[in-house]
Amino acid sequence: MNIPQTSFPRVVIIGGGFAGLAVAKGLQKQELQVVLLDKHNYHTFQPLLYQVATGGLEPDSIAFPLRKTINNLENYFFRLTEVTNINSETNTVETTIGNLEYDYLVIATGSKTNFFGNKNIEENVMEMKSVPQSLNIRSLIIENFEEALLTSDLEERKALMNFVIVGGGPTGVELAGALAEMKKGILPKDYPDLDIRQMQINLIQGSDRLLDAMSKKASQKSEDFLIKLGVNIWKNVYVQDYDGLNVTTNTEESFKASTVIWAAGVIGGTIDGLNQDIVQRGRRFKVDEFNKVVGYDNVYAIGDVASMQSEEYPHGHPMMAQPAIQQGKLLAKNILAQLKGKKQKSFSYHDKGSMATIGRNKAVVDLPKWKFQGVFAWFVWMFVHLFSLIGFRNKVIVFMNWVYNYIRFDRETRLIIRPFKNKNKYSFRKEDA
Amino acid sequence: MNIPQTSFPRVVIIGGGFAGLAVAKGLQKQELQVVLLDKHNYHTFQPLLYQVATGGLEPDSIAFPLRKTINNLENYFFRLTEVTNINSETNTVETTIGNLEYDYLVIATGSKTNFFGNKNIEENVMEMKSVPQSLNIRSLIIENFEEALLTSDLEERKALMNFVIVGGGPTGVELAGALAEMKKGILPKDYPDLDIRQMQINLIQGSDRLLDAMSKKASQKSEDFLIKLGVNIWKNVYVQDYDGLNVTTNTEESFKASTVIWAAGVIGGTIDGLNQDIVQRGRRFKVDEFNKVVGYDNVYAIGDVASMQSEEYPHGHPMMAQPAIQQGKLLAKNILAQLKGKKQKSFSYHDKGSMATIGRNKAVVDLPKWKFQGVFAWFVWMFVHLFSLIGFRNKVIVFMNWVYNYIRFDRETRLIIRPFKNKNKYSFRKEDA
Repeated sequence: MNIPQTSFPRVVIIGGGFAGLAVAKGLQKQELQVVLLDKHNYHTFQPLLYQVATGGLEPDSIAFPLRKTINNLENYFFRLTEVTNINSETNTVETTIGNLEYDYLVIATGSKTNFFGNKNIEENVMEMKSVPQSLNIRSLIIENFEEALLTSDLEERKALMNFVIVGGGPTGVELAGALAEMKKGILPKDYPDLDIRQMQINLIQGSDRLLDAMSKKASQKSEDFLIKLGVNIWKNVYVQDYDGLNVTTNTEESFKASTVIWAAGVIGGTIDGLNQDIVQRGRRFKVDEFNKVVGYDNVYAIGDVASMQSEEYPHGHPMMAQPAIQQGKLLAKNILAQLKGKKQKSFSYHDKGSMATIGRNKAVVDLPKWKFQGVFAWFVWMFVHLFSLIGFRNKVIVFMNWVYNYIRFDRETRLIIRPFKNKNKYSFRKEDA
Repeated sequence: MNIPQTSFPRVVIIGGGFAGLAVAKGLQKQELQVVLLDKHNYHTFQPLLYQVATGGLEPDSIAFPLRKTINNLENYFFRLTEVTNINSETNTVETTIGNLEYDYLVIATGSKTNFFGNKNIEENVMEMKSVPQSLNIRSLIIENFEEALLTSDLEERKALMNFVIVGGGPTGVELAGALAEMKKGILPKDYPDLDIRQMQINLIQGSDRLLDAMSKKASQKSEDFLIKLGVNIWKNVYVQDYDGLNVTTNTEESFKASTVIWAAGVIGGTIDGLNQDIVQRGRRFKVDEFNKVVGYDNVYAIGDVASMQSEEYPHGHPMMAQPAIQQGKLLAKNILAQLKGKKQKSFSYHDKGSMATIGRNKAVVDLPKWKFQGVFAWFVWMFVHLFSLIGFRNKVIVFMNWVYNYIRFDRETRLIIRPFKNKNKYSFRKEDA
C-alpha cells in the first residue's frame, strides 16, 4: 500500500462515514500515523440521499472528498480500497490493494441494507445507501414515467406508476414525502399526457406506527402529513416477496409495481476475520463501554457496526449519525489517553433527539424535552441538516437549491446520468450511456 | 409512440441541443404540433463539460431537463429515444420506441467524436461530448492518481500521471488548462505522498498553432498561458495510434500514457435513410440557404449536422453553438412563414466572435472588431457562459461554484460517481459501484 513505516503507532480507520471522520479528526496533530480506508473517495451525507434520488439535489452537494478532510494533516493517509479480512493475530487488515499492519484498528464500516436473507428481494428492489444507488433510483423513476407514456396496456402503465416503499422509518417516510411532492408539483407538468393521479405511492410498515423510534405524536403527525400528500400507508404489513413486478405480503394485500425501494432496515457492515461469537443481533460487533471489540486489545468498532449493550440500550445504540459521531469523538480521546497512560472515559450516549421531514413546511422533531411538528419543525430540520453537512461549498449549494425549490415549487436535477439497467419485466433502456 | 393525431401539422425535431431547442422555442404558440426527440432527457451545455471532467462543476448544473423547456406549451411532446432511420417516402422517423410520421422534419443531431476510422483509438481514448463521458474522465483522472500511489514501478507511475490531450481547439485548450490548474492547486494537497511534478499534460495539435480557428494573437496568447501553466505543447503532430498505453505519432515523438482524451475533431451525427450523396465533408447533410436538406421538401438540418456551403464558408459554418442557435431561430420563422404562405428568409451567419478560457484570470476573446486576452477576457468569458446557460438555478449554482473555486483555489466536486471501467493495461477498479 506504500504507507511509510514510522516510529509512531499506526491507527487504521476503516470507513469515512460520520464515525470514522470523527475519530480521524480527534487524532489530529498527535504523535500518531493515521490511515483512513474507504471504498468511495468521498464521505456521503446519508440523511439527504433521498433528495438526490428525487431530483432535489445534485450528488456532489451531499458528498465531500475524503482526501480533502485530511489533506492539511501530517502523517495522515487515505487509500481507496475495500477491506476483505482482518487478521488479528498478525495485526493486519487485508484489502484489495494489499495488506496493512495496524497498532490500533478502528472499524467504522457503518451498515448495509438488510434483506432478511431474501434473494429475490435483494435482486429486484432498489437500495438507497449510497450516492450511486440514489442516482439509480432517480433514473428509474424517470425511466418509468417515460415508459408509461408509451404503453397502451393499462395494467402495465399502472405498474410503472406504482411505487412501493418498504419501511416506515425516517428514510421511508422522507422518501415517500418527496415522491408525493414530485407527484404534486413536477410530474403533472412534465407529463401532461399522463394521468398522474394514477401514480400510487405505497408506504409499507411492519409495525403499527410510522417512525416507531420517535414519539407517538411524531408518528401520528407524520402519518397525517403523508395522508394529506396522498400517500397510501400500510401498517402491520410485511413484504414477503418481490419478483420485479409482484409484491406479496403477509396479508391479503399485494401490489403490482415496477419500483420497490427497500428501506426496511439495516445490518452492520461487519468484516470477516474476527471471532464470530461477538457478532450480535443486527450483525454488529459487541463492544465494551470504550468501544473496544470484546476479546481484542487493539480493535475498536464504532457507529452502526458497534453494539454497545446497556440497560437502556439492550441491543446497542440506534444506528444513526449521533451515536456514531459521539463514539468517534470519545474514541479519539481514549486512544490518546491510553498512549499517555491516562485513564479512559466510558461512553454514555447523549441523545440530542431525532427528526424527519415529510415535505414542504412539514416535519416532525423530537427533542429530549420538547416535541413539535409543522412549519417550525421544518425550519429546524433544514437548519440542522445544513449545519451538519461537511464543507462550506456544500452548505451554500444545498441552501441555494432549497431556496430555489421552495420558491419555484421545483426540483430541477432530473438528469438520467446513470441509466439504470432495469431488470424488471417492463424494462425500457437496457444499454449503458 | 402515443402521440395524438391532430389537425395541425406535426414538426418532429431530432435533438435537444442548441439548434433543436432554438427551433422548438421559435415555434411556440402556433397552430402546430411539435415533437422533440432526444436520447438524453436533458439539454447539455457542452462548452462547460470540461469543468465537469475536472471537478469544477457538478453535472446537474450544466444540464437542463428537456421536459422543463416545453412543459408549459400546448401540443408539445418529448420522447426519450434514439432515431434509427428516416423514411422520406412515408415521411416517417423510425426509433427505438416505434415510428412517427412527420409533416416537417428537423434534424438537429449535432456532432460526434471523429476518430478518423481508427478502431484502436476509438476503443482506448476518452471522449468528452456528453455528461456521462465527462464523469468517466473525472473518475479516471482520480482513479489514476489513487493507483499511482500504490505502484513502485516508476514507469507505470509515470504513465498513470501522464495525460495526453489530442486536439488544440477550444476543447483541448480549455481541458489542458483545467488539468494544469488541478496539478497546481489540488493534486499536491490531495496526494502529498506523490511527486506531482512528475504529472505531465501533453497537448497535441495537428496544425502549426493552437485555436487555429481564432486570431493569431489568440493562438499565441493561449500558448503562452499554457506554457506558463506547465503544459507541453506539440504542434504539427498527428496521433496515429493508441493501444491503451502507447501513443504513437507521425513524428519520432511517442508517449506512454494511461489517459488519452480525444478532442481532435467531430463529425456530424447523421442518421441513416436519406440519400448518401448529400453527406458532405465532415459527415454533414448538405442544405440550402433555408437549411432545407438538398433533394427533400420537408426535411431540414441545422447546426453541426448541416453543411450550408457559401463562398465564405465553402465547407459549411463552424460546428459551434452560435450558427446552431441562429439557424434554429431562423428555421422556426421560415416554417411559420411557409405555413402562412409568406416569403422565407435565407440564412446569413452573424459571427459574434469566439473565445476560450485557459485558466484562472486567463482567457482569449476574438470579437469581430476587438481581440483581447487576459483578466478582462476571462471575466467576459465567464459572463457570456453564465448568461448562455439554460435555467436560473443553473446560473446561480455555477456562479456560486466559480466564486468558491476562485476564492479558495479549489475544485470540490471530485467524486467518483461513475467508476470508469478502465480498459487500460494499468487498470485499477474494474467493478461497478
